Amino acid sequence: MRPVDFAGFVDDLATQSGRAILPFFRTALTALDKSSGGVFDPVTEADKAAEVAMRRLIKASFPEHGIVGEEFGSEREDAELVWVLDPIDGTRAFMSGLPLWGTLIGLLRGGRAAYGMMHQPFIGERFFGDGGSASYRGPHGNRTLHTRRCASLAEATLSTTSPTLFKSEEAGRYGAVEERVKLTRYGYDCYAYCMLAAGHLDIVVEAGLKPYDIVALVPIIEGAGGIVTTWTGDRPEKGGTIVASGDRRLHEEALALLGGEA
Amino acid sequence: MRPVDFAGFVDDLATQSGRAILPFFRTALTALDKSSGGVFDPVTEADKAAEVAMRRLIKASFPEHGIVGEEFGSEREDAELVWVLDPIDGTRAFMSGLPLWGTLIGLLRGGRAAYGMMHQPFIGERFFGDGGSASYRGPHGNRTLHTRRCASLAEATLSTTSPTLFKSEEAGRYGAVEERVKLTRYGYDCYAYCMLAAGHLDIVVEAGLKPYDIVALVPIIEGAGGIVTTWTGDRPEKGGTIVASGDRRLHEEALALLGGEA
Repeated sequence: MRPVDFAGFVDDLATQSGRAILPFFRTALTALDKSSGGVFDPVTEADKAAEVAMRRLIKASFPEHGIVGEEFGSEREDAELVWVLDPIDGTRAFMSGLPLWGTLIGLLRGGRAAYGMMHQPFIGERFFGDGGSASYRGPHGNRTLHTRRCASLAEATLSTTSPTLFKSEEAGRYGAVEERVKLTRYGYDCYAYCMLAAGHLDIVVEAGLKPYDIVALVPIIEGAGGIVTTWTGDRPEKGGTIVASGDRRLHEEALALLGGEA
Repeated sequence: MRPVDFAGFVDDLATQSGRAILPFFRTALTALDKSSGGVFDPVTEADKAAEVAMRRLIKASFPEHGIVGEEFGSEREDAELVWVLDPIDGTRAFMSGLPLWGTLIGLLRGGRAAYGMMHQPFIGERFFGDGGSASYRGPHGNRTLHTRRCASLAEATLSTTSPTLFKSEEAGRYGAVEERVKLTRYGYDCYAYCMLAAGHLDIVVEAGLKPYDIVALVPIIEGAGGIVTTWTGDRPEKGGTIVASGDRRLHEEALALLGGEA
């Protein structure tokens, strides 16, 4: 088997998906009665165009790999190497014209997240990692990503997409974490995990995630020195309830609240 | 009196304040015990450095003008032309590493907002207007800003910084608007008003604003075809309770709920 530069390939995927998405960003969200009777939704159109572009490139380069995508489902999910794609994570930000969405490109090897990138093509910034290290390239330079130290929830800044997204029993467990932290921020989607990897946030708690919402982010978080698991401390690749922390002490304190006996 | 290109001068102010702020963005928020016993807070440092840079440029170019700034108070507030400055609107986003803050530069002429700019130096985008028209320059091109049509709250996307920022009676009035809209977004600060000017949001409702939170945004909103007043329908330059709408019909419906008899 030839050695493969997956980092370079992921850069190509990100560049092509960005080109597919940008023409739809900050265009008017108008409901056009098309001849088909359908409604024109820029987010859905951009999502599909980007996933088609990425799937085409993957199939041309690695026909034996599997692909799991938000828009077009799964192919060869049992392959050794499986790409996990979410062209636009943060659709509500996208719809409001705010560049706080990202394209998530993850690679599973034997079911484990091995490489991942979050790409924000409008700003032109990329967060990427392989579990051992994580890096950033952006309009004002490059850097290595490191989570910051945070000994306890009492000192922590927490982020979650929305407190209203938890089911009833989950809401109680999440609430037990939120009431202990110093500060809470809502609504950052994939950016929350990247800001955790970059040392600007301490903990992210979410539920109901799909694999394509989290797989790409796992090698970035782990590569930056963070920990990401389910609320019961299991591997995060299948999604569901997710907790990510920049500091292991914080993670243990949160797991005791999130995953302990109800 | 010589004619003055305030648009070009505001561009210079934005460029200089951006240079002052960027070294502090996405740096670690560490509390350093400095010799003075003080604590190093990157947002405050950036805020001050940018306001100092802008005040210096204004005083050198227009010593007769007034200045109102978030960090260093007011000078010659009764001058015919008064600059109203907020170096970092959206400090919570800034602290979390998210480029959803902006530098607000407004110019009052006889107490009325005559020119304004919102500058996001990390992304490199500027929203600006003079009440008659409004424009955008960004990394992917330039455009004219126009609000979008929206006939009623039932079809509207609403934004506010946080529903928890309203005082009790205000909260009830705000709630009456929120319960009628199609969609609500929290946490965008100055970006909410710019996205309204760009046609991606329909209405922004806030309270407790200072003049420097809103003056720069007024000529952008009005220049894009929107309306911005207090909840009682008065001019917005003094801040307080603010409602901005992209469509006049929406504004009237909102004013009836926000400013009517309690």
